Amino acid sequence: MIKLTIWNEFVHEQEHEEVRKVYPDGIHNALAKGLADAELQIRTATLQEEEHGLSESVLADTDVLVWWGHMAHDRVDDAIVERVHKRVMEGMGLIVLHSGHFSKIFKKLMGTGCDLKWREAGERERIWVVNPAHPIASGLPEQFVLEQEEMYGEHFDIPAPDELVFVSWFEGGNVFRSGCTFHRGQGKIFYFRPGHETHPTYYDANVLKVIANSVRWAAPSGAATPVRGHSEPSLEPIRAKN
Amino acid sequence: MIKLTIWNEFVHEQEHEEVRKVYPDGIHNALAKGLADAELQIRTATLQEEEHGLSESVLADTDVLVWWGHMAHDRVDDAIVERVHKRVMEGMGLIVLHSGHFSKIFKKLMGTGCDLKWREAGERERIWVVNPAHPIASGLPEQFVLEQEEMYGEHFDIPAPDELVFVSWFEGGNVFRSGCTFHRGQGKIFYFRPGHETHPTYYDANVLKVIANSVRWAAPSGAATPVRGHSEPSLEPIRAKN
Amino acid sequence: MIKLTIWNEFVHEQEHEEVRKVYPDGIHNALAKGLADAELQIRTATLQEEEHGLSESVLADTDVLVWWGHMAHDRVDDAIVERVHKRVMEGMGLIVLHSGHFSKIFKKLMGTGCDLKWREAGERERIWVVNPAHPIASGLPEQFVLEQEEMYGEHFDIPAPDELVFVSWFEGGNVFRSGCTFHRGQGKIFYFRPGHETHPTYYDANVLKVIANSVRWAAPSGAATPVRGHSEPSLEPIRAKN
Amino acid sequence: MIKLTIWNEFVHEQEHEEVRKVYPDGIHNALAKGLADAELQIRTATLQEEEHGLSESVLADTDVLVWWGHMAHDRVDDAIVERVHKRVMEGMGLIVLHSGHFSKIFKKLMGTGCDLKWREAGERERIWVVNPAHPIASGLPEQFVLEQEEMYGEHFDIPAPDELVFVSWFEGGNVFRSGCTFHRGQGKIFYFRPGHETHPTYYDANVLKVIANSVRWAAPSGAATPVRGHSEPSLEPIRAKN
Repeated sequence: MIKLTIWNEFVHEQEHEEVRKVYPDGIHNALAKGLADAELQIRTATLQEEEHGLSESVLADTDVLVWWGHMAHDRVDDAIVERVHKRVMEGMGLIVLHSGHFSKIFKKLMGTGCDLKWREAGERERIWVVNPAHPIASGLPEQFVLEQEEMYGEHFDIPAPDELVFVSWFEGGNVFRSGCTFHRGQGKIFYFRPGHETHPTYYDANVLKVIANSVRWAAPSGAATPVRGHSEPSLEPIRAKN
Repeated sequence: MIKLTIWNEFVHEQEHEEVRKVYPDGIHNALAKGLADAELQIRTATLQEEEHGLSESVLADTDVLVWWGHMAHDRVDDAIVERVHKRVMEGMGLIVLHSGHFSKIFKKLMGTGCDLKWREAGERERIWVVNPAHPIASGLPEQFVLEQEEMYGEHFDIPAPDELVFVSWFEGGNVFRSGCTFHRGQGKIFYFRPGHETHPTYYDANVLKVIANSVRWAAPSGAATPVRGHSEPSLEPIRAKN
Repeated sequence: MIKLTIWNEFVHEQEHEEVRKVYPDGIHNALAKGLADAELQIRTATLQEEEHGLSESVLADTDVLVWWGHMAHDRVDDAIVERVHKRVMEGMGLIVLHSGHFSKIFKKLMGTGCDLKWREAGERERIWVVNPAHPIASGLPEQFVLEQEEMYGEHFDIPAPDELVFVSWFEGGNVFRSGCTFHRGQGKIFYFRPGHETHPTYYDANVLKVIANSVRWAAPSGAATPVRGHSEPSLEPIRAKN
Repeated sequence: MIKLTIWNEFVHEQEHEEVRKVYPDGIHNALAKGLADAELQIRTATLQEEEHGLSESVLADTDVLVWWGHMAHDRVDDAIVERVHKRVMEGMGLIVLHSGHFSKIFKKLMGTGCDLKWREAGERERIWVVNPAHPIASGLPEQFVLEQEEMYGEHFDIPAPDELVFVSWFEGGNVFRSGCTFHRGQGKIFYFRPGHETHPTYYDANVLKVIANSVRWAAPSGAATPVRGHSEPSLEPIRAKN
């Protein structure tokens, strides 16, 4: 069974009444409940916990990590970011949600600025599947609607994704590459756009299906062990040169 | 359980004593035996059978098709090629082995000439894993040796593969992109280089592991249904233009 | 100077008054005029000409070929399609416009069905640049508007493009990967979505800029000569095996 | 004319007699001489200069930066690394040579460990063109030989390159992805493997041709200006939700 850790900075929900109304137990617990039937072994972790809840032992016991952050990116300890990065290099999957595009770990993995445009206007978002053969799109309709969401618009400053799974249409005239896969080291990474804290996005059945699919996709799938970092004796005879 | 059909043109083995010695029951049966433990439901098919053994019902009941051909590419009926192509578009996986690079179905899927260089000199091949995180490399060492193989050398005239899994080193000085994935329609395609008919390559444990891994990778993994081919009513209001 | 040949099936303009009003001299001549300042050496060719205007000598003298077709895809001679394909393999650039997605040459190069959805509702299209560093986007604003266009909607059945340059937003709620690059053989291919025959799209300054940019991008840029199709002597000593 | 800055840590040549014999004026000056005919406007910079020779004004006046480093990666000031990174994001090209795979700037751009294997055995390297249509391969033979080089072997811990141009064959049995392109922000990046400090690699005509080609390829080619980092007013009407 896949071991999933859901990380949430858990600040908006404690500071803003508007957000607490939508997610009274925090986004992490809403997600944990929403994914309860997905045959995953789920734990949560938050910024406020010791080591942000991401101790060596927790990460060693995590197949896939979900990341939601926004206000408090800077409060995440660099040492923890390094630790998460190391685990991704070793094969841990990472699902970065919404405003996590600006998290330290995502920027470190991408190597780019990860900036974008936004608009908080409660507008309609249509999320279109542009790669219907991808396992992350499994079981989805060709598109689904979020009646009110924050807009994220291009240009999104990421490396070209290895696979583009979703493109969002926004009522106000923008588009966005909403579902992007990346491979870094042995780890698989999925960025998924929706999830503004004032909208009930993480209760939406299609959104939860995407996240569940992406967790399964990102889980380590059995791999060869990379061999690196040493001086290697010759495998074949090398002729003496002059 | 994944339903695998192994297709072989089965001509060399019947016409050339040298090949029959290596594969007395044909390459298809050697592969079927070698993959027997891989928890697959296996059938075989050959050029000589009616409809080349690839009737509508056989293909409808096939999750992944393995293809070995060489001398008789031209004898494969165009209608059967269309039928296989249609199934790949619908999501059937396709594993193309060795000289299958010049098969009608591979060339049709690639859109390029698919030519390469070769040398029959019984030389050593080292197959290096360049994408150790890929499920097709699961359980492999960082490289493995085929003591004697035909050389295939670059330039290999294919579209840039979606993922490059293996690169071959040849004793005689050449390299080759030996393990390449492609996605076409709903189908996953894997090209795997080794398998000259005069060498016992398909008895090699690592080669069999790669093929078994690739069959699992190429099997339909649950997907969204693409919606295409119709005029679509508007989803959102369209303002009248002057 | 880049030698550009603009090919148009030139049927709508001769058969439909509505189209003739927009393109009285045909889409090919409208494009030729629109690109006149782009420092290109331009000729046109149409379906009705001998060999569709694409003789061996014309193609040999063409660096980049633009293709517009719709009603008459089936009337394009297979031998001419093979000839164009051969030239793309040799390095000729190919710009496929709008309904050319269903042309024989595009489908042959892609290896997929190339189907999509459409709607003729005169709706607004916003073409967003998602790859601003790409030379095909040179000099463009971050997005531009076509006040009335036919909608093309996902899913678009193509291989994942090598580079995605544009994504379209449609008023009626759809999105589309509108600018896609592919490499096949030595040739560069660009698919560009806009250009319905009843709208004055090919007079739009931004559309013309994209096409001019794409012609420059697709022109042969000096390359190595691929070496293939022969049995190659060994470059390094091969030890005798027992 | 493209403005090229060649950066070299310039430590080996000052500390090791063996290296000084090969590059008495430093690798940077050997490269500058070797590229003198390439119609580039060339300056050099080294670790020992103030701000490592990479002041704001120098970088602002640089189209493409070449980077060679090895022993002294850690001595490169983090602030200079940030400055170079910012310029790549803005569109400056970056050519990373050989042991530069472990430089701070390359690792920051890749987001991975960038480790590999090596062997200093003076063995033969054959560099094969696997993408002959790429402008970086322009004018090269299908392969070229470096009689003695350090081996770099897979697995090379980088993201899958956007384009793979060269693969190296090594006498001792290894292979390596030797020429890799990446796009990050508005900048183009090329990693090129050869260039061990004890071998006269940067006097080789083919190596110099690759570097000259890559500088031309990586130069800013005219692009759209990305628009990001602000809250954007609606472009289309947004209906009030209940």
